[in-house]
Amino acid sequence: MAEILPMKSDTAPHPIEVQKAPGITRIVLSNPPANALSIAMMGALVAALDDAANDKDCRVVVLAANGKVFSAGHDLKELTAHRSDDDRGRAFFETTMRQCSALMQAIVRHRCPVIAEVNGLATAAGCQLVASCDLAIASEEAQFQTPGVNIGLFCSTPMVALSRNLTRKHAMEMLLTGERIDARTAREFGLVNRVVPPEYLGTIVGKYATTIASKSAMTVKTGKEAFYAQAEMGLSEAYDYAAAVMVENMLARDAEEGIGAFLEKRKPEWTNE
Amino acid sequence: MAEILPMKSDTAPHPIEVQKAPGITRIVLSNPPANALSIAMMGALVAALDDAANDKDCRVVVLAANGKVFSAGHDLKELTAHRSDDDRGRAFFETTMRQCSALMQAIVRHRCPVIAEVNGLATAAGCQLVASCDLAIASEEAQFQTPGVNIGLFCSTPMVALSRNLTRKHAMEMLLTGERIDARTAREFGLVNRVVPPEYLGTIVGKYATTIASKSAMTVKTGKEAFYAQAEMGLSEAYDYAAAVMVENMLARDAEEGIGAFLEKRKPEWTNE
Amino acid sequence: MAEILPMKSDTAPHPIEVQKAPGITRIVLSNPPANALSIAMMGALVAALDDAANDKDCRVVVLAANGKVFSAGHDLKELTAHRSDDDRGRAFFETTMRQCSALMQAIVRHRCPVIAEVNGLATAAGCQLVASCDLAIASEEAQFQTPGVNIGLFCSTPMVALSRNLTRKHAMEMLLTGERIDARTAREFGLVNRVVPPEYLGTIVGKYATTIASKSAMTVKTGKEAFYAQAEMGLSEAYDYAAAVMVENMLARDAEEGIGAFLEKRKPEWTNE
Repeated sequence: MAEILPMKSDTAPHPIEVQKAPGITRIVLSNPPANALSIAMMGALVAALDDAANDKDCRVVVLAANGKVFSAGHDLKELTAHRSDDDRGRAFFETTMRQCSALMQAIVRHRCPVIAEVNGLATAAGCQLVASCDLAIASEEAQFQTPGVNIGLFCSTPMVALSRNLTRKHAMEMLLTGERIDARTAREFGLVNRVVPPEYLGTIVGKYATTIASKSAMTVKTGKEAFYAQAEMGLSEAYDYAAAVMVENMLARDAEEGIGAFLEKRKPEWTNE
Repeated sequence: MAEILPMKSDTAPHPIEVQKAPGITRIVLSNPPANALSIAMMGALVAALDDAANDKDCRVVVLAANGKVFSAGHDLKELTAHRSDDDRGRAFFETTMRQCSALMQAIVRHRCPVIAEVNGLATAAGCQLVASCDLAIASEEAQFQTPGVNIGLFCSTPMVALSRNLTRKHAMEMLLTGERIDARTAREFGLVNRVVPPEYLGTIVGKYATTIASKSAMTVKTGKEAFYAQAEMGLSEAYDYAAAVMVENMLARDAEEGIGAFLEKRKPEWTNE
Repeated sequence: MAEILPMKSDTAPHPIEVQKAPGITRIVLSNPPANALSIAMMGALVAALDDAANDKDCRVVVLAANGKVFSAGHDLKELTAHRSDDDRGRAFFETTMRQCSALMQAIVRHRCPVIAEVNGLATAAGCQLVASCDLAIASEEAQFQTPGVNIGLFCSTPMVALSRNLTRKHAMEMLLTGERIDARTAREFGLVNRVVPPEYLGTIVGKYATTIASKSAMTVKTGKEAFYAQAEMGLSEAYDYAAAVMVENMLARDAEEGIGAFLEKRKPEWTNE
């Protein structure tokens, strides 16, 4: 992924690292061993995603992790500590679930494609993070699991993302048995796009990121937004909507330039919007 | 599946058998050779599913069949006999289709996961029965078919379940050609989770059933219900709904116990609710 | 596909060819090398689909192409020429997108199953054409691509068809990278039903077409229409709808004949409706 510029935005202990290469923002969960999705971790991720959305240079986001675990999901100790609150934790659990859903939707609604780079185990909300990304590349050593059912807490929010990626019986198998699947099974189930040897994970993710970063940012934003919007419509409504999106896209400068360059057999020059 | 206690609930000729093992109710279609879904068979299946839902000990249902055919679908002789009714059968056909849809939805809405144990041929509404279950394990000798198109009666109700399990072109291939697919193809299409040698079918289904029966019944019920509910919602609504489900799940006793046991590295003790 | 009767309906230069065999209408894109979906091509395809729908003998439509490219999608030169219109092309782009969406929906709403016979490269709206068909058989030499993102114009209308056939990450991979996939990958993704050596493509498509043409046209029409209608409903509504469809289907002459023939172990005689 070319030159990486490590950048820590403040001096406080920070559960993530943000690395920038031209066009690519790499957000790295950096609180091993579990990379748990504590309130602090989720807040840092949402903030980093927002920063990337506001960074004109950013065209693709990579979500990666330090350590052997991509993310083990919610921070069970943090949740359990709030059981002694006056309301038995209800308010804190609500905050956690709201924050978690906001994080997952921040990925889906992000103007840039988000690629999960999955090095190791992704469980529960960690698995949901992978499912929520637009693309996911996994190391052969990655594993996936929605184990909530084993501890009395069904993976109900992870299922929202999972069931929009996997067919029904595959999703149910993961959710009801709580058992781990390996990377190849995850690929077969449609949870990840590709499985690569661990030593090539960064290279392959970098290739995808570089490819996508080379496109018109306006075009990619238009398309990603349209993808998730039309997915919730009936066929006829979806076509009306998508046809309108394409007309506006045709009238935008980057389409004029891109199609012109294609017909003239030259490389297009995108606006940096 | 450990010790099986055969149990016939009444002395009348009965098209099904119900077998109980700890936590597991096994409902067996027992009207070979076709195990046709006559009014009597569908009624018996709905009643047995209801009984299982009301049986506090039941945590998972297995749907199996005696003979070489899992189920050949509707009873065509029974349907045809009503063509001489005053209304050419309309009222009886309506009753049949209503009963059939009620049966399929009784599986989906059942508080317990339902596993199809598919020993042989499953056609038409028999194939729909498999598609309607949460999980399905098939013998290598199982086959699947939606042959209605061959006899002038398109498998329109089976398609409801089929198209919620298979991708569009796979479902259309089955529905339009009316041809049989083998168990491996069914697995590739997502209709079944796993294909096993016939002599291991009971063992493997038993393993799945035992695994699921070991979970908190409340948690499984919560999760299964949420799965099918959120599947019909848009993303944002689904997240609001699932987040609310998780908060209530967190506050339930079994989640407190399960998470506590996990943090204390001990085995959880579920309430028997 | 038995005897093929070439038939050109008029003497004007025509971008398609229509060939008829008993029960089968073969519509062939015949404007190589690109078989671009110009206004003329789309108009000819819609007209040919309408003719087929009105032809009592037609029971299945095959969509094929002459040359090495199945279809390269929209005619970019035609689109670009209208950039000099007073409205910068807006009206023409709207006409194009409306026409394109009408074409794709004419396939989905067609009373006959439509089979794509994909000999070569299918890109953008050409790939959408394949995704919109009920079934698709591809030559080993076929390739598929949604390359709009490469030229600043995201494949937003193709995504409507693509995302209703492929799982989310597969669709996103095609749309965001704009890269080609080969026929085997397309099969794995669910975009095509089968991949065959180029020399057998016509034979295999003919086998599918002949099989489907041998069914009751009324039954196939009923089923295809119900398939796409119920796909947009929630489970309970879908069952109410499909049950009503089956009752009417049961009362139709072809179901009475088909079921009767099945019970009497003879070949059914369909009405030619």
